[in-house]
Amino acid sequence: ARADRKYIGKPGQLWLVGTGPGRLDQITPAAKAAISRADVVIGYRLYIDLIRPLFCPGQVIEALPITQERQRAERAIDLANWGLSVAVISSGDCGIYGMAGLVMEMLADQGWDGTTPRVEVMPGISALQAAAARVGAPLMHDFCAISLSDLLTPWEIIQQRLQAAAQADFVVALYNPKSKTRTEQIAIAQKILLDHRSEDTPVALVRSAYREDEFIVLTTLREFLNHPVDMLTTVLVGNRSTLVHEGAMITPRGYRVS
Amino acid sequence: ARADRKYIGKPGQLWLVGTGPGRLDQITPAAKAAISRADVVIGYRLYIDLIRPLFCPGQVIEALPITQERQRAERAIDLANWGLSVAVISSGDCGIYGMAGLVMEMLADQGWDGTTPRVEVMPGISALQAAAARVGAPLMHDFCAISLSDLLTPWEIIQQRLQAAAQADFVVALYNPKSKTRTEQIAIAQKILLDHRSEDTPVALVRSAYREDEFIVLTTLREFLNHPVDMLTTVLVGNRSTLVHEGAMITPRGYRVS
Repeated sequence: ARADRKYIGKPGQLWLVGTGPGRLDQITPAAKAAISRADVVIGYRLYIDLIRPLFCPGQVIEALPITQERQRAERAIDLANWGLSVAVISSGDCGIYGMAGLVMEMLADQGWDGTTPRVEVMPGISALQAAAARVGAPLMHDFCAISLSDLLTPWEIIQQRLQAAAQADFVVALYNPKSKTRTEQIAIAQKILLDHRSEDTPVALVRSAYREDEFIVLTTLREFLNHPVDMLTTVLVGNRSTLVHEGAMITPRGYRVS
Repeated sequence: ARADRKYIGKPGQLWLVGTGPGRLDQITPAAKAAISRADVVIGYRLYIDLIRPLFCPGQVIEALPITQERQRAERAIDLANWGLSVAVISSGDCGIYGMAGLVMEMLADQGWDGTTPRVEVMPGISALQAAAARVGAPLMHDFCAISLSDLLTPWEIIQQRLQAAAQADFVVALYNPKSKTRTEQIAIAQKILLDHRSEDTPVALVRSAYREDEFIVLTTLREFLNHPVDMLTTVLVGNRSTLVHEGAMITPRGYRVS
């Protein structure tokens, strides 16, 4: 053990916290408490701003750009190794395409002993849940989440997953559907889904759920690319039974209703 | 309009509320507020008991057996049609295999106009998220949820989804894996997954996450059926990259870590 790690005299703490869609009444009390009690809060700037009311005097807040996930994780681990309590925040659920995995991967790579620092994951309302809640009840049956970002995953694998999901009739939530430079993938996804589902399959586009600039479109598999879609949009594609009634997207569970 | 529906003079309200895993600090403030403000709270007895501290004097609490989903939904709609505020609660996320869908299906079937009663879905931490958070970060990559209950879904379709998920390397969350009378399905699911994944693939069994009787086993695809599994157990099966380090189940996101 290095002497310079000892003066604080307590083991560090890493709270890997999901802040949900961003509105304060959608954050669990456990997550709020972790954010308020942490010595340091680290996160991507946009989401740090949304939870600012939770911060306490004397806390160190480190808001970093979105591209620097590894730097954020490294910094968090360093500070926790010094004995500090560190809350790493992700929007949605920190455990779904969030920072929890990267931090734990890096800990494992450094030979983490499982207890120092202590690590706790605090789940949050994920983007797919927030989106679903705002349009009705589309996730009533088997579903899957697929990220269309091929930065870290070969496009080949993503395509296989789209095909499998389309064929086996999963309700599909697409994350990271489109960026400024990456516009082809979502069109390919649409094509794959259309091979197995009707053009009229309901599709919901939800951006900034529960926030002031919330933007929701209820459309179809045929039409949805005529609407704005970007990195922050969650795309929910119904299965073969999903229907729309008076603005609500509903996937039947299989009960005999009438 | 029937005259006997008019004396309350305000439109009814249906709050379809997810109460998460059950511990009060895992319920969103929005969900808590809906439960406390409702004239009537309707739900399955076990979960009603877990949220009892949120109830207020004068509220009507209707705790019904687990098998009577349709009766609960009908009752909730009836009361809302009379002008009452009704909170229908489901554990986990009401919008994921929960009551939200059934209530909305029945409303649609009755020719609901989209506004009377008003309907709002309040998401909650789902079983798969609670389970994931308690074992590490297994949901860092594309995942799917599959219910093994064939009460409402033909087993044929469930099997197709298992096959698709196994083949396309989704992390898989199995809901309703096994009941007292239904014990074969989980063994078939294991076999399907073993056709495409190593015997050493990490598997987590999580029951009663965040509650006093929480029960967690970290095991493998080969071994997991040697452990207790029941209707309330969530089974998380890793993808081909998922690893275990010092008791933490981690699915790499694809970053170059070291």
